[in-house]
Amino acid sequence: MLGSGLSRPLEGVFLELAKAANNSKSMVFSVDSPSGFFTEQAMPEGAVAVEADFTLSFHCPRLMFFFPESQAFLGTWHVLDIGLQTPQTNEFSQDSIPYSYTLIHELKPIIKNRNAFSHKGNFGHALLVGGSRGKYGAMILAGRACLKSGAGLTSLIVPSDAVNIMQSALPEAMCIASDASDIIQGSFNLEKASAIGFGPGAGTDEATSKTLKAIVQQGIAQMVIDADGLNILSENKTWLAFLPSGTILTPHPGEMDRLTEKADSTYDRLQNARELSRKFSVIVVLKGAYTAICFPSGEVHFNSTGNPGMAKGGSGDALTGIITALLAQGYSNSESAILGVALHGLAGDIAASEFGEFSMLASDLINCLGDAYSIIQE
Amino acid sequence: MLGSGLSRPLEGVFLELAKAANNSKSMVFSVDSPSGFFTEQAMPEGAVAVEADFTLSFHCPRLMFFFPESQAFLGTWHVLDIGLQTPQTNEFSQDSIPYSYTLIHELKPIIKNRNAFSHKGNFGHALLVGGSRGKYGAMILAGRACLKSGAGLTSLIVPSDAVNIMQSALPEAMCIASDASDIIQGSFNLEKASAIGFGPGAGTDEATSKTLKAIVQQGIAQMVIDADGLNILSENKTWLAFLPSGTILTPHPGEMDRLTEKADSTYDRLQNARELSRKFSVIVVLKGAYTAICFPSGEVHFNSTGNPGMAKGGSGDALTGIITALLAQGYSNSESAILGVALHGLAGDIAASEFGEFSMLASDLINCLGDAYSIIQE
Amino acid sequence: MLGSGLSRPLEGVFLELAKAANNSKSMVFSVDSPSGFFTEQAMPEGAVAVEADFTLSFHCPRLMFFFPESQAFLGTWHVLDIGLQTPQTNEFSQDSIPYSYTLIHELKPIIKNRNAFSHKGNFGHALLVGGSRGKYGAMILAGRACLKSGAGLTSLIVPSDAVNIMQSALPEAMCIASDASDIIQGSFNLEKASAIGFGPGAGTDEATSKTLKAIVQQGIAQMVIDADGLNILSENKTWLAFLPSGTILTPHPGEMDRLTEKADSTYDRLQNARELSRKFSVIVVLKGAYTAICFPSGEVHFNSTGNPGMAKGGSGDALTGIITALLAQGYSNSESAILGVALHGLAGDIAASEFGEFSMLASDLINCLGDAYSIIQE
Amino acid sequence: MLGSGLSRPLEGVFLELAKAANNSKSMVFSVDSPSGFFTEQAMPEGAVAVEADFTLSFHCPRLMFFFPESQAFLGTWHVLDIGLQTPQTNEFSQDSIPYSYTLIHELKPIIKNRNAFSHKGNFGHALLVGGSRGKYGAMILAGRACLKSGAGLTSLIVPSDAVNIMQSALPEAMCIASDASDIIQGSFNLEKASAIGFGPGAGTDEATSKTLKAIVQQGIAQMVIDADGLNILSENKTWLAFLPSGTILTPHPGEMDRLTEKADSTYDRLQNARELSRKFSVIVVLKGAYTAICFPSGEVHFNSTGNPGMAKGGSGDALTGIITALLAQGYSNSESAILGVALHGLAGDIAASEFGEFSMLASDLINCLGDAYSIIQE
Repeated sequence: MLGSGLSRPLEGVFLELAKAANNSKSMVFSVDSPSGFFTEQAMPEGAVAVEADFTLSFHCPRLMFFFPESQAFLGTWHVLDIGLQTPQTNEFSQDSIPYSYTLIHELKPIIKNRNAFSHKGNFGHALLVGGSRGKYGAMILAGRACLKSGAGLTSLIVPSDAVNIMQSALPEAMCIASDASDIIQGSFNLEKASAIGFGPGAGTDEATSKTLKAIVQQGIAQMVIDADGLNILSENKTWLAFLPSGTILTPHPGEMDRLTEKADSTYDRLQNARELSRKFSVIVVLKGAYTAICFPSGEVHFNSTGNPGMAKGGSGDALTGIITALLAQGYSNSESAILGVALHGLAGDIAASEFGEFSMLASDLINCLGDAYSIIQE
Repeated sequence: MLGSGLSRPLEGVFLELAKAANNSKSMVFSVDSPSGFFTEQAMPEGAVAVEADFTLSFHCPRLMFFFPESQAFLGTWHVLDIGLQTPQTNEFSQDSIPYSYTLIHELKPIIKNRNAFSHKGNFGHALLVGGSRGKYGAMILAGRACLKSGAGLTSLIVPSDAVNIMQSALPEAMCIASDASDIIQGSFNLEKASAIGFGPGAGTDEATSKTLKAIVQQGIAQMVIDADGLNILSENKTWLAFLPSGTILTPHPGEMDRLTEKADSTYDRLQNARELSRKFSVIVVLKGAYTAICFPSGEVHFNSTGNPGMAKGGSGDALTGIITALLAQGYSNSESAILGVALHGLAGDIAASEFGEFSMLASDLINCLGDAYSIIQE
Repeated sequence: MLGSGLSRPLEGVFLELAKAANNSKSMVFSVDSPSGFFTEQAMPEGAVAVEADFTLSFHCPRLMFFFPESQAFLGTWHVLDIGLQTPQTNEFSQDSIPYSYTLIHELKPIIKNRNAFSHKGNFGHALLVGGSRGKYGAMILAGRACLKSGAGLTSLIVPSDAVNIMQSALPEAMCIASDASDIIQGSFNLEKASAIGFGPGAGTDEATSKTLKAIVQQGIAQMVIDADGLNILSENKTWLAFLPSGTILTPHPGEMDRLTEKADSTYDRLQNARELSRKFSVIVVLKGAYTAICFPSGEVHFNSTGNPGMAKGGSGDALTGIITALLAQGYSNSESAILGVALHGLAGDIAASEFGEFSMLASDLINCLGDAYSIIQE
Repeated sequence: MLGSGLSRPLEGVFLELAKAANNSKSMVFSVDSPSGFFTEQAMPEGAVAVEADFTLSFHCPRLMFFFPESQAFLGTWHVLDIGLQTPQTNEFSQDSIPYSYTLIHELKPIIKNRNAFSHKGNFGHALLVGGSRGKYGAMILAGRACLKSGAGLTSLIVPSDAVNIMQSALPEAMCIASDASDIIQGSFNLEKASAIGFGPGAGTDEATSKTLKAIVQQGIAQMVIDADGLNILSENKTWLAFLPSGTILTPHPGEMDRLTEKADSTYDRLQNARELSRKFSVIVVLKGAYTAICFPSGEVHFNSTGNPGMAKGGSGDALTGIITALLAQGYSNSESAILGVALHGLAGDIAASEFGEFSMLASDLINCLGDAYSIIQE
């Protein structure tokens, strides 16, 4: 069935044909896009379109391919090269917004090989800050992901009760105890840190908020803020203006809504993320099936790796560790966000193939980071 | 030797033939069932039947195949299709009770695949409650089994001394500390929990009993009660009437006897389990070589997976974690019980093939859950 | 060069020939035994014998093959079948003492298979007692070996400070806290224990001695005493007479000397072990390259498995756990000692082939117990 | 392009040719050494030489091949045998200093095989001293490397708070608690130690300095000093004269500079290390891409194993453990330094091939020590 990018609802015989296809038990293939499906904007309420099992599109993906609401219509989609004058591309624009769909092979050029004469000082000192009683595991995951992502040195600021847990779990990491036994509290000397990741399991205690504020005030640009770090920012939105330019925020949809406003659709949430990025000159990594990395320039990069086996507690903590490690090694903030998200998803895909989506854990994903890196580097 | 389903003891020449077969050193094969063996009820005391090494039965298994007392007569048994008008089945009834023997391939249809756009919220929040000083390991096993069975989030309520142990062992899980250092005590906000598993290593302290009572009173239907949770119920039988309909109880034979009365035979114990299930509208998972899942409707499902390498401390804790995770993911109580028991046994079978029945541990079984799930999903 | 079992030193031309062979750079093979070598007793001081690289002996091994002092003369030895009327045997007697050399295939008949309908109660409850500050690891190793050797339930009595360490490391085991934080102290209810292993890392504090005395007084026959348990006995030799008949002692040479007297040679030490066994009706497992299991009857079984990669701290702790598990499962004391020592050595051989003698640890050996059991069971 | 060992800068047409080669996008191969490259001394400032991708040299490597400054000119280099009268060698001298480049196959002869009748006492008792709050992981790594390098017994002196961490992580090791909870403090009985490794994660507290001083004063020759042990020596240079002859120091470049003076070039730093070795009769292991082992005789051995994946925190701790284990087993100080450095790098190379340079950790390296040993032993 020949698809179309029409921006008006199906009517008449086309509507009837679509309904018939949807009621049929046959496998439905759509070409270009399913008839009646809106490729550039959300479907109007009540509109009908063909619900395909597979969609074969041309030249470049369309914006609406990246939203959960479209899945019922698109099924599994692929983009085919049809020999247009410009070569096949994963870049496309929509309402003058430049989008791209990052494929694995495009990342190889940004990989930095380790020089034969390099030493641990050449790979930076990554500092992770987080953990609160009952959520110390988040810092084990973030720390381990950081270690397995090539950082020269990794230090963890954790509640004092968690220091020994970290030392047991992560013998390669050094620890600095918070002033409090069960939360992050106090001010810390960050001079030795090449990059900072704040948030895994941190909680939102007022003392912890003060610590985050103090770190932000030190103006270190190589920073990732995740999880409870984002929740603290949501409760203190005036602080957003003080984030150093290039800071990477990694919200999941719920955290995104708290940072901005409750979105009516995933499309609206993406636009909120873009606006947040532009307004405060930060990189917003909006996590989802196709994680969207929004840059202050307005550009959006959709990630192409990952699977629903990662939809489990701990996956986000791993991402924070990975991006912090990349920043520490001297990757630019943009590269760290794009490469980190891709590595995270690819490691998840390898873990899913080994342990299954049902059973794979964030720990399994982390153990697959080396293989993910090798695939990108190939 | 042609077997029979006779319900009277062998006499005369048949008796002599059976004795001769039993004294012979030859391999003995029985067809249908061993001569003199009672397939529908326990053997009368002193009755003689052929003691086969292998039994090849027809069309459907018989009730007495599932009891340990029969093993001496049946040896290893198989059911063959003989082309009756109704197709071969694993369902059979006895005294108007509907029994069935759950085979792996029958479980595939109830498996829920993880949608590409799903997030951790789609897979529920599993809450496990248990642990007491000296028995914290039970919660590590239950927690890990829960994590490896697809739950979106896993939280553990444990004695405060055990919090750090859990965080080290299970970084993907969150912990909530009990009011006491070494037992479960206090009342807890269960609002965020999609399913609750109570009991592994919990002990039977009065304070812990009060906690269980409080949880039962909250009336959350998606609940598994195991181990010391069952022992608390045994000591407070009036509470059984307050269990939310559909609650899953997972007793081993000793716990079953304490919940009802000491059974004279495994057949009687099964009927006690059925009666308990019917009376209180709960699902009773009576653990054994052929674990029997008893439903309030009177139906009994015998499980077909598992091996004696699982006859070691910790196996039951793993089952509690698995069923809790399935409940959290939105499987119905019946599906969770049947699928959980099957996954547990199948993972045990994989672990036995890898590590041997002698050496396999509950931890090994848990690590094989991903493969067990894949086999069912195939 | 034709060997001989002569019991007098070489002289004359034979002496010269032996010296010439020893000075030669050629590979030296001896047949039967090296010329001048005493096969039934220690070499006299100053006596010369051929120093072979390989010795091919006939019909059965000779006693002196099993002592380190002989290695320089025998090199690597093998026993060949030469068609004597009695079949080749690994039994031989010397000074009316019945010796045997236990080969792997001889152990298969004593293996107990796990019955399909068995439950954890059928495999006993193993209890290990030990640990003192700085030596808690010994109990992790013993406990893990016990778990991996088929026990139905495993409990550990450890200093209270060590409880959480054990729970983390061995989630399948239950723990009972000693009355003291850093040593074994107090009296314990042993009723539920099917077998007891005492000693790994226990230290020799007076309070710990009292605990051992109290356990001995309870007269539980299924008991292994190792390490510091043996050192306590050495300091309290009158207690030896109160050991229940069949108690298994597992000394290394230093512990053996302390239990009896400093031996002048490994041959004398073996006779001391035999005498200890006979006098107190205990089984003495004298550890070494060919571990000698001495029975009250006077019999000695030399073990045929193991390698020098096991010559590292922790190997003995593993053996204690294995034998305790076998006792708990209902193996007789003799079977437990012989099978346990063989499994331990065989697991060590598998670990050496996987990790190398240089790098293999007791933990590696323990992980190979399942494979060792499979090989014996084949 | 034919290379040359000229010790004067390129001029005229040669200079132009070299510049042309360097601007070309072709792959550049140099024979002997790149034209204009100084093989025996640092390049003069501003001098130009061919920048090869590969260099094929003859007979023996040249001194400047081993310095990072040369990498831009040499690319990847190999030494070829060209049939000179003396056989190909990895020894060469420069300014009358004897250098050598240690190849794996040269190490096989110094390997000590484990005798069949040996026991744990034959492989020594290794003692590691270190750890301070937040840096306990360094002792886990050093301890594990020591255990995996064949020591008969391993003991750790650690802050009292770290004892239980060590017991969990390293059950085969014994622990002795420092007098302080969070640092090394106190004096210890070292009589049972066959070799001592001091420094991993030790910190430089005054009390810890006193402990090191006390150990040095006991004059135990089989000692490795690393990390904070070196920093303490840097702050107390008069102590260097009291180090027992043959003590092994294992500085990285920063520690080396603190022990002597800030070096202007890697060549100068090597000469500082040689001078330190000579002056105090110690062995200096100057870590780097080609780790240089400097002996009091003036000899320098460059190591041939290792890769930049090891440029991460924890690698040095592993080396300390390895060398301490070798010393404990009776290897001479020279053998321990040379073999230990080679094993460390080779294990790192195996880990890199398994986990990738990006993801490999010191823990991974340690797990590969058995394979590294096997390769050397082949």
